[in-house]
Amino acid sequence: MTKHIYIYSPASAVRDKAAFRRGVARLEGLGHEVEIDEAALSVHQRFAGDDTTRLAAIARAAASHADVALISRGGYGLTRILDALPYNALTKAIERGTEFVGLSDFTALQNALLAKTGAVTWAGPAVGEDFGAETGADDIMEACFDDLLSGQGEGTGWRMPMRDAELKVRAIHDATLWGGNLCVLASLLGTPHFPSVDKGVLFIEDVNEHPYRVERMLDQLRLAGVLGRQRAIVFGQFTGVRKVPGYDRGFGLTTVIDRLRSLLKVPVLAGLPFGHVPTKVLLPVGAKVELAVDGRDVFMVWGHRHASGHQHAAHTPHAH
Amino acid sequence: MTKHIYIYSPASAVRDKAAFRRGVARLEGLGHEVEIDEAALSVHQRFAGDDTTRLAAIARAAASHADVALISRGGYGLTRILDALPYNALTKAIERGTEFVGLSDFTALQNALLAKTGAVTWAGPAVGEDFGAETGADDIMEACFDDLLSGQGEGTGWRMPMRDAELKVRAIHDATLWGGNLCVLASLLGTPHFPSVDKGVLFIEDVNEHPYRVERMLDQLRLAGVLGRQRAIVFGQFTGVRKVPGYDRGFGLTTVIDRLRSLLKVPVLAGLPFGHVPTKVLLPVGAKVELAVDGRDVFMVWGHRHASGHQHAAHTPHAH
Repeated sequence: MTKHIYIYSPASAVRDKAAFRRGVARLEGLGHEVEIDEAALSVHQRFAGDDTTRLAAIARAAASHADVALISRGGYGLTRILDALPYNALTKAIERGTEFVGLSDFTALQNALLAKTGAVTWAGPAVGEDFGAETGADDIMEACFDDLLSGQGEGTGWRMPMRDAELKVRAIHDATLWGGNLCVLASLLGTPHFPSVDKGVLFIEDVNEHPYRVERMLDQLRLAGVLGRQRAIVFGQFTGVRKVPGYDRGFGLTTVIDRLRSLLKVPVLAGLPFGHVPTKVLLPVGAKVELAVDGRDVFMVWGHRHASGHQHAAHTPHAH
Repeated sequence: MTKHIYIYSPASAVRDKAAFRRGVARLEGLGHEVEIDEAALSVHQRFAGDDTTRLAAIARAAASHADVALISRGGYGLTRILDALPYNALTKAIERGTEFVGLSDFTALQNALLAKTGAVTWAGPAVGEDFGAETGADDIMEACFDDLLSGQGEGTGWRMPMRDAELKVRAIHDATLWGGNLCVLASLLGTPHFPSVDKGVLFIEDVNEHPYRVERMLDQLRLAGVLGRQRAIVFGQFTGVRKVPGYDRGFGLTTVIDRLRSLLKVPVLAGLPFGHVPTKVLLPVGAKVELAVDGRDVFMVWGHRHASGHQHAAHTPHAH
């Protein structure tokens, strides 16, 4: 199953060119036709080219007629140019069948697009860190990516941490899945680029953010009324943080989750295998999902997005 | 001139008790009567006592009838309890003549109070880091603090960096001064605690935030329409950040300022001696100010807040 994959750089400059090349080679090794945007390796300050260059790259990705438009990496760069993104071209490309995949800084484009046109994009891997990982691409990530390419993915599932075994959560139907990187999402709040999603399923992840900063961002969303309007809040992976033993004194991410649960009526689920980790599922930002919890097992289904005769089991990495 | 100074801990736990004691001793050495809140040295996780304890401490500070209520330190703790702050008690205390002074995390209380009741508080020193500094309290900070105590302070002034020598800025009259720590301020956006200030003078500072994060926060305020509604944006000190030489490639705080100037019609001034630095002026958050620029020199005047027969020159540290 050869697919056309367009690789472009909407945010930070690609510094680890070896990882980038490994990622491209991996995708080609899987049998795909990989097209690399002419500015994919551009450098301007921290960025993969100046704002004009990156906007042109995004427009080329939208015009590529590829099956998947995949970011080389995240970093920083999209919040700067949210006012100038080619929202209509992106939406038309998505209607034509191009799936836009990425994460981290890409959260800004995904949620701004959701706010503007409602078009669905995928929270998922990047070329360098995921397909080009030095230890090899993660099996589950690749299986989920393959589901997207084959149009047969219909959902995902995961196991919540032991401490959440007693959580009682009613089944959720017909809810908009949205979210991504918490810091990037919070940085859209108060602007026209923040999606106005009611009764949705909000998923979040972050990297290198101390739990107190995670809490402050969640409080911002909570005090803005965003969290209380959702049907579920889903914690992905929060990585890259070290507690300061003599300082935090027990204040950690579980403290943050427990407090949130005490303040919200909305169920707060944990353990989603998504974030700055190798084992990540793909998640359709802006799509309608069903969500069910059975003990520690969570099932999230978004149904077939493409015509397909096959019933296909969701890939269910059991994190934790 | 003996004044009654009430010291309390609304946010993080005091870890550097030696600095705290030095700060108290310094204030007593200046002839003041220092009253220390019973929970000033409490510890709960990262915090100076749990939320209830800290809320009670804030209420005691408001009930103290002190001339100044001074925070022991900032850190993290006020955004968590913004919904429960004793806004009316604080406002009554301020009307009675108690001046509330602090910075950093204290920005949350200051701006939430401005949003709720319009009461004026002071961006200024904390006990430990400022009065208790190991190298001794800063002269200019102490002179500005003394101006507040004597009721004779009427403004401040500073010299902008050389690169701003050609900036042309019209005099600004009758504008509300507001702001503080950029990260804390941005974390209020979209919530009811963000003040709705039009045609104000917005000052900002931060510590340990990379320029790209400063830019992202400023973009959030800009895209939310906040910056464009002001008469001036004033950059204080942004400290504690190291650029990554092979990565940032020239992207730094001046890049951020220059881009902001290109995007905004509002004048952007730099060099305000306020932030996580020893030499800091005191600034009345919520007060009306006049602002004038003469070459690199900026003068900001808020007039006498207390009856006083003396004309008193503003303390004008010439930073940079």
